Amino acid sequence: MLAETQGNVLGEAIARVQAEIDSLFDALLPVPEDTSARLVEAMRYAAIGGGKRVRPLLVVSTASLFGVSRDAALRAGAAIEAIHVYSLIHDDLPCMDNDDLRHGKPTLHKAFDEATAVLAGDALHALAFEILADDATSEDPFTRSELILTLGQASGMNGMAGGQMMDMVADEEGVVYDLHAVTRLQQLKTGALLAASVEMGAILGKIPPAGRAHLRAYARDIGLAFQIADDLLDVEGDIAKAGKALRKDSDQGKQTFVTLLGVERAREQARALVDQATLRLASYGAEADILRALARFIVERDR
Amino acid sequence: MLAETQGNVLGEAIARVQAEIDSLFDALLPVPEDTSARLVEAMRYAAIGGGKRVRPLLVVSTASLFGVSRDAALRAGAAIEAIHVYSLIHDDLPCMDNDDLRHGKPTLHKAFDEATAVLAGDALHALAFEILADDATSEDPFTRSELILTLGQASGMNGMAGGQMMDMVADEEGVVYDLHAVTRLQQLKTGALLAASVEMGAILGKIPPAGRAHLRAYARDIGLAFQIADDLLDVEGDIAKAGKALRKDSDQGKQTFVTLLGVERAREQARALVDQATLRLASYGAEADILRALARFIVERDR
Repeated sequence: MLAETQGNVLGEAIARVQAEIDSLFDALLPVPEDTSARLVEAMRYAAIGGGKRVRPLLVVSTASLFGVSRDAALRAGAAIEAIHVYSLIHDDLPCMDNDDLRHGKPTLHKAFDEATAVLAGDALHALAFEILADDATSEDPFTRSELILTLGQASGMNGMAGGQMMDMVADEEGVVYDLHAVTRLQQLKTGALLAASVEMGAILGKIPPAGRAHLRAYARDIGLAFQIADDLLDVEGDIAKAGKALRKDSDQGKQTFVTLLGVERAREQARALVDQATLRLASYGAEADILRALARFIVERDR
Repeated sequence: MLAETQGNVLGEAIARVQAEIDSLFDALLPVPEDTSARLVEAMRYAAIGGGKRVRPLLVVSTASLFGVSRDAALRAGAAIEAIHVYSLIHDDLPCMDNDDLRHGKPTLHKAFDEATAVLAGDALHALAFEILADDATSEDPFTRSELILTLGQASGMNGMAGGQMMDMVADEEGVVYDLHAVTRLQQLKTGALLAASVEMGAILGKIPPAGRAHLRAYARDIGLAFQIADDLLDVEGDIAKAGKALRKDSDQGKQTFVTLLGVERAREQARALVDQATLRLASYGAEADILRALARFIVERDR
């Protein structure tokens, strides 16, 4: 009963953030009257109305621990989501993962064309930093600058893009990673942006780096749990619910947490990480319940 | 004699900035020991040892008017150049302009592969904002934040990416632009980043927006002159000097300043813009000579 109530609370929190982020992107992406309209239409197609919005929910939920205004947290969440969305657009391209389906609809290069997809990804990338550099996100320029540095580091060569390259090298050059290398790859490819989401919530709350250690550890734990859950879904998931191609990793003979640990141990590992993540929040009271519920949701979701 | 001396002074200034930017990128892009090394090698291939470095020279020369430290100006210049380089990488892709040659060597997707080129462009894009958000660029967070906002706006949907989309729509949908539309397109596609270079030099000098009006007008003038000169080079240039494919625009029947104005009037227009740009600098003394010489160079260069 408690779990169910928590599930409902989380469900409502997710639905609320989804609506808020959609509405923010709608406002940030007015379609111009010249021929660059196609670019903005493509950005809107990819950014509005899709995705679980886990990263914005992490920002908002962390920021709320420190009394940050919801508008500011949502703007930071939209910036991270713009990075996440651009990375999905580029990853789906024919020269990358060549995916036709994303969030249950045609990928951007299918709905528009490849050149537009490359460019819309680039423009969303720039938008992320424009959002953060605007004083509507924080009146304090030091906070803005810290947000930008955190997001830049998490998404660039020492973060998401570096992890994506490690993944590509494994695919193309047949490099076989061990558990240590897969963990490192995933900490960069998906973990860095999830960790940045929590970190940016704390930065908005003006919590100094030393005060963010528990939250950072929470983020690292759920980041890995998130990826193990993704690997499990890739093997066991329902394509109709996922809204994207599944069984690509297993078909390609790629090393994942599931191939390295087996289904059972992978599931146990994800649960252990979630338990550990929850313990990291021990110093916070009921106001961290959404972060706790989100950790559970990450391993229990079916898409 | 004066022109020759000025030419030598400019030539030395360009060579100096080229060496400094190469050395800065070398320091910013250490090759890691894991399999993400390929990403950084690709970034280095594209970012080091090529290009005129017009944008960094604009930053450094503008910043020097206001006594900004050269190291700070070079970092801002490297950030703009990282954006410029990522845009060239993505523009050269098969789904965009499909070019094989850039700065006299194979384009990145030819030397590596398309997926690596997409990703290296993305990582250089993130690097630009990482550089600016770092306090090594400016100890003042307000300055950092203003630099980032300026670069984000100049490179995103209301700047470079928007202009690139207008260009693509003309190519693909056969939209025929008039002089007004071509001017707008070029002000976005190439002008915005050139203007940002000058603007960022002034931001580093803590010059408030009102005090940057003359410099902004200078940048707008040379931005247009730069594009007209490019269009003239596309028609009349020497491929060996250009180090890239020429006569692409004219062969595709695309509207450019040259097709709209004819060679002679286009050349006159470029010269008039340079004269006007030089007048904008009237309130500055000899310390603005490099900016004056750079304006001349833009229309007189042969590549």
